[in-house]
Amino acid sequence: MKKVSLKDIALQAGVSTALVSYVLNGKEKEARVGEAIAGKIRALAKELNYQPNHLAKSLRSGKTHTIGLIIADISNPFFANIARVVEDEAKRSGYTVIIGSCDENADKAWDLITVLINRQVDGFIIVSCEGSGNQIMYLKERNIPFVLLDRHFPDIQTDFVATNNYKASFDAGIHLISGGYTRIGLIAYKSEMYHMQERIRGYRQALQDSRIEFQDDWLKEVRFETMEKEVKVAIEELLSSDQKVEAIIFATYGLAINGLKYINELRLKVPSDLAIVSFGQAEVFDLYYCPITYLRQPLEMLGKTAVEYLLKKLKNPDEEMKQVLMEAKLIARDSSKVKSGWISG
Amino acid sequence: MKKVSLKDIALQAGVSTALVSYVLNGKEKEARVGEAIAGKIRALAKELNYQPNHLAKSLRSGKTHTIGLIIADISNPFFANIARVVEDEAKRSGYTVIIGSCDENADKAWDLITVLINRQVDGFIIVSCEGSGNQIMYLKERNIPFVLLDRHFPDIQTDFVATNNYKASFDAGIHLISGGYTRIGLIAYKSEMYHMQERIRGYRQALQDSRIEFQDDWLKEVRFETMEKEVKVAIEELLSSDQKVEAIIFATYGLAINGLKYINELRLKVPSDLAIVSFGQAEVFDLYYCPITYLRQPLEMLGKTAVEYLLKKLKNPDEEMKQVLMEAKLIARDSSKVKSGWISG
Repeated sequence: MKKVSLKDIALQAGVSTALVSYVLNGKEKEARVGEAIAGKIRALAKELNYQPNHLAKSLRSGKTHTIGLIIADISNPFFANIARVVEDEAKRSGYTVIIGSCDENADKAWDLITVLINRQVDGFIIVSCEGSGNQIMYLKERNIPFVLLDRHFPDIQTDFVATNNYKASFDAGIHLISGGYTRIGLIAYKSEMYHMQERIRGYRQALQDSRIEFQDDWLKEVRFETMEKEVKVAIEELLSSDQKVEAIIFATYGLAINGLKYINELRLKVPSDLAIVSFGQAEVFDLYYCPITYLRQPLEMLGKTAVEYLLKKLKNPDEEMKQVLMEAKLIARDSSKVKSGWISG
Repeated sequence: MKKVSLKDIALQAGVSTALVSYVLNGKEKEARVGEAIAGKIRALAKELNYQPNHLAKSLRSGKTHTIGLIIADISNPFFANIARVVEDEAKRSGYTVIIGSCDENADKAWDLITVLINRQVDGFIIVSCEGSGNQIMYLKERNIPFVLLDRHFPDIQTDFVATNNYKASFDAGIHLISGGYTRIGLIAYKSEMYHMQERIRGYRQALQDSRIEFQDDWLKEVRFETMEKEVKVAIEELLSSDQKVEAIIFATYGLAINGLKYINELRLKVPSDLAIVSFGQAEVFDLYYCPITYLRQPLEMLGKTAVEYLLKKLKNPDEEMKQVLMEAKLIARDSSKVKSGWISG
């Protein structure tokens, strides 16, 4: 690749390379360069489409104005949309975002982190995946600035911006119970990740607070890699149990999509045969024949706040640690409407 | 950020930094380093989690094993999914992908390209946006390896892998016509981009070949930035024209989503009030009450082939230019089913 150099500009302007350097680095005053010649140099740089060597520059300044964003799964619209928010917000402060998606795989996440460290990003925003806690420790020990987004590790003290998943899931349970549903299943990922455990805990607490005895076979944990098959089995089991469920909470968007497809195949009607509440966010919840009740996570605020905190840390490494849980909002639609004949108490 | 250096390892191993460098760069034989000491150095490097300075290394070798992927809009599931295919495929050959999304904005695309050039990617895969032809010229003139994906510029000779949009759109028109629909509208983006112009051309050719006179007010071109509003107006106009349409082809996924929302608001029934065919790809087409007929673009093949061509170019800069158009497949569903009473001729 042949780039326009300071020398190219100097040759065309008929001045020294040093002089061009002074002007293009904004130091014409210190170097006492006349305005006419400075203007000429800037015009030539523009005309020749001169690209400053950010790399060399940033190796000196230690700043590249680039943020690395690691997301858990680019094909999940929640993360794709949050990436867009992060980009927009970073752009507003003059930062460019480069993105890596780890596909819920800790090895890929590690590859991406090392690649981006070597590409000299100023800091990271990370949606962690299972088994990546040691990577977060690595960043922390080396004082590499980062903010965790959407998912965090309760045992590792870090900055994070996430949803209050316990509360969201609790709200989903109480919403269904107050609509007359008592046999409620939860389909979640089989995962040690805190956000997933919190969704399970909130659901169980809602049952307990409503004096509904939790049944072991109401909770189905399926693996991310094989969810298509496992969600089908989970739904079949939930519907054939002694305490057959009349409502299902899906703990993620991907689970809900696979679940709804299978519910259609079974020709079950929502909500009369089965009421639904889901985490996640997708146009499909609006366009389904029976609009789906969902927990609206504060996607915009999560993304913006993560950028804001990271930029503060970049300016001031001694900035105090920030840990924020934001509330999701339950958007009630027809998929969980009050059971016919039920008088809410 | 404090990284483990060659010196740290040398100190702990009690050898010279040069010796550590030989071993970790696979040159122990040339430097006649004994096996025992080489093994010790490698073990220490692993234990201390030494990260080679790829940057310095790649500035020497000129290779970073990193691909820059620029996509037009990360929040469009077609691009998000193609990004996942590109990652998987690149990973298989030992390449890491870093992604930038330009939000259909040429200025952002340029920022990303310059940032990634400065981050020393080996080459690019690019889904171009409107007004970015000069950026492609820039890369071409500087012999920076790249392959265009999904969208290309007919006036610029480059490698590309794209869908045959003319044929796809033609197929959509013929499909509707052979199902008994004669008044067919097309909602597209207002764009000079070739892929969009080809979608318009295919639609018009289908009408012409079927001896249906094209009406100017059947073609609606809306702006990306304001599509939500403009799609509504377009649908209203298509339905109130003298030659009121009985079917609509949506030229993109985003247009279809907005269109379907409004069609629901108007309480129109698909396909009896209005038949639908759409470009793009989304779960929503399966889960809509009346499954949507769509043009399935060969997403997997597009992504894989783009990676394959780029890697060939990286190995051999004199590799011949490759320009491939792949065929989309029309997946017929209920949203465009044969008109009741219509006997296909």
